[in-house]
Amino acid sequence: MSSYHPLSEAEAIEIARSIREVFPTGEELVSREIGDGNLNLVFHIAQPATGRSLIVKQALPYAKVVGESWPLSLDRARIESEALIKQGELAPGLAPRVYKADHELALTVMEDLSDHVIMRRGLIEGGHYPKFAGHISEFLARTLFFTSDLGMNQQDKKRLVQSYINPDLCKITEDLIFDHPYYDAETNNIEDSIRDAAEAIWRDEALLFEVAHLREKFLTRAQALLHGDLHTGSIFVTPESTKVIDPEFAYFGPMGFDVGAVIGNLLLNFAGQEHWSADDVSRRDRRSELLATIRDVWTLFEGKFRRLWDEHGVDRVARAAGYQDDYMLRLLRDTIGFAGAKTVRRVYGLAHVADLDTIPDAAARERAQRLALAIGTGLIRRNRQAESIEDVILIAEGAL
Amino acid sequence: MSSYHPLSEAEAIEIARSIREVFPTGEELVSREIGDGNLNLVFHIAQPATGRSLIVKQALPYAKVVGESWPLSLDRARIESEALIKQGELAPGLAPRVYKADHELALTVMEDLSDHVIMRRGLIEGGHYPKFAGHISEFLARTLFFTSDLGMNQQDKKRLVQSYINPDLCKITEDLIFDHPYYDAETNNIEDSIRDAAEAIWRDEALLFEVAHLREKFLTRAQALLHGDLHTGSIFVTPESTKVIDPEFAYFGPMGFDVGAVIGNLLLNFAGQEHWSADDVSRRDRRSELLATIRDVWTLFEGKFRRLWDEHGVDRVARAAGYQDDYMLRLLRDTIGFAGAKTVRRVYGLAHVADLDTIPDAAARERAQRLALAIGTGLIRRNRQAESIEDVILIAEGAL
Repeated sequence: MSSYHPLSEAEAIEIARSIREVFPTGEELVSREIGDGNLNLVFHIAQPATGRSLIVKQALPYAKVVGESWPLSLDRARIESEALIKQGELAPGLAPRVYKADHELALTVMEDLSDHVIMRRGLIEGGHYPKFAGHISEFLARTLFFTSDLGMNQQDKKRLVQSYINPDLCKITEDLIFDHPYYDAETNNIEDSIRDAAEAIWRDEALLFEVAHLREKFLTRAQALLHGDLHTGSIFVTPESTKVIDPEFAYFGPMGFDVGAVIGNLLLNFAGQEHWSADDVSRRDRRSELLATIRDVWTLFEGKFRRLWDEHGVDRVARAAGYQDDYMLRLLRDTIGFAGAKTVRRVYGLAHVADLDTIPDAAARERAQRLALAIGTGLIRRNRQAESIEDVILIAEGAL
Repeated sequence: MSSYHPLSEAEAIEIARSIREVFPTGEELVSREIGDGNLNLVFHIAQPATGRSLIVKQALPYAKVVGESWPLSLDRARIESEALIKQGELAPGLAPRVYKADHELALTVMEDLSDHVIMRRGLIEGGHYPKFAGHISEFLARTLFFTSDLGMNQQDKKRLVQSYINPDLCKITEDLIFDHPYYDAETNNIEDSIRDAAEAIWRDEALLFEVAHLREKFLTRAQALLHGDLHTGSIFVTPESTKVIDPEFAYFGPMGFDVGAVIGNLLLNFAGQEHWSADDVSRRDRRSELLATIRDVWTLFEGKFRRLWDEHGVDRVARAAGYQDDYMLRLLRDTIGFAGAKTVRRVYGLAHVADLDTIPDAAARERAQRLALAIGTGLIRRNRQAESIEDVILIAEGAL
């Protein structure tokens, strides 16, 4: 018999009050529900007298997207809280602190990051995050390496795989990223102006072949514990700080899916720069900055991952001559393929991104969408032949 | 508090008596313990008055190999009984019937196959099994296809992955197949006469690179529910019948590991034919027959797997043009690599095979061992470039 029920604000306050490391004194707490109500309740609990605050996040037993509602396992709240804790241990300072988790109530009490901004919003508003590439490459290298067979006991890893089996959330990815965008699915959300581009993708046999490969990797490759949804809407930033949130899609999958999610979402913002007029120098500057960030994310990630392998590798056999180089090249190729898939689905799949959708001028928006599709499909087509991160830069620049 | 304890013969008889479908009448039952005592107790329970019988197999909480003893999870008995039941459902008639399983007592009550012979023994004694390739290809195609993302609901598959997490038994494979044979490990059991050949393998960088790839696949590729130990000692045969037993190593891994196990063990018998004098026509005849069987196993398997895919495929995306051909080629390559790894470890790793070890003449035995190593390393070196099963035949013939 489960005690689960959606919390009232009074209950959320009561739970928050029990977190003595945040609220050691008894002054009044006030609650504000700040979730979008589609998947979770999110209570911001503050103590005006002290300026202290925290977040109570509770999973709802369903998902609402574009009016549709379908049941969704509450077990994702356990997975999210366990992933947050593990990522925080492996990449200190790069995930919110977890104060308490209650699996029965499907809730996590965690650090309030209101002083940060969601990175997607920050990028759209022209923010600069010079430390982002350093931070996210650290997060990726450490969380992926230390949950893989390269960096942890291989029997313990199997038990960890077991506790992160996440069918409901993986299903969302399998449908919305690796299936629906590649045929005329009802869930697609295609602006009339680019329908011809979507239809061209549905007929592109070479592309569909590559998508089948990427889907297979997502379904079968238990390489490391992924965040599983690492787009710029799952990252809180300031110019000084980066915090990765919302790992409810966490499961053991191919590492390149997480690295590719970051790069794909930077490329969506790159495409979105069509909102500037063509002769505005800001368009070119922003794009250069984004491409430099992409290059840094991969280059720093690769260097850190290799260093961890050299210093903390647990697998004797993985020291075979040439194997690390080969592994990193395959990881780059996966990254590029998944970056492409992440890009395409955001243009006309079920869930769009504000980087494109908020461009008010229809012609500019169409150009941005076509650009994103050209980049995304270019990456997917290229992925298994890619040789370096410069391939991504060339594809993005070539699409302009 | 577990009720587990090793059964007495009296207790085994009592359990057997409860299986009314085998023993509907009350005549006396007699028990004979026929296990090797290293991993399991195996009671053969017969009713002399009716000629009926069954097997009670109980896991022991340790493994004994060459005098060493180490603890081993009893959960393997649950995995074994569940795998037997599932394989029996998916490949009717090709696995022993399970009458009862008791996870607390770590026991499985199953069909008595005393009218069959262990295939390794049968091959060594010159038996012919003309239906074997048809049967084992059916077993492989159906058990692998219908537990993969191609043939079953992809969310249910994830839950099945979860219930077959099998760290202890996978560890044995990871050590004894994919690690210890590739350096001077204490567990290796190397005849002095071929020590130079083992040492050459330890220095062979190209080979070690391929082994690292195969090990990675074993560790990370959750493709389908494998038997996990499908050598000819896990197969009971008669000229008319094939029954696959002992799936205690079952877990979700790369399909080629099971197919390769069958082929590798046929190749070990091929190498073992050195026991004939060089001018005996039987040597050549047996080898031709074995190579024909290997060709049939792959060819029939591939045909059946493709037919299942065409008729029962659940994944829309996997219908992309060219994908099935590419998938089958990769599966062949994995099969060849794993067949090679399975062959090498049986020559000088911890656990040898009678196909080689029972050759009384030392010179013939040495020739057989060197032949097995030449074939095994040839397959490993070739695996990722192989184009057809004929590559295996050519490597085997070329090694003579």
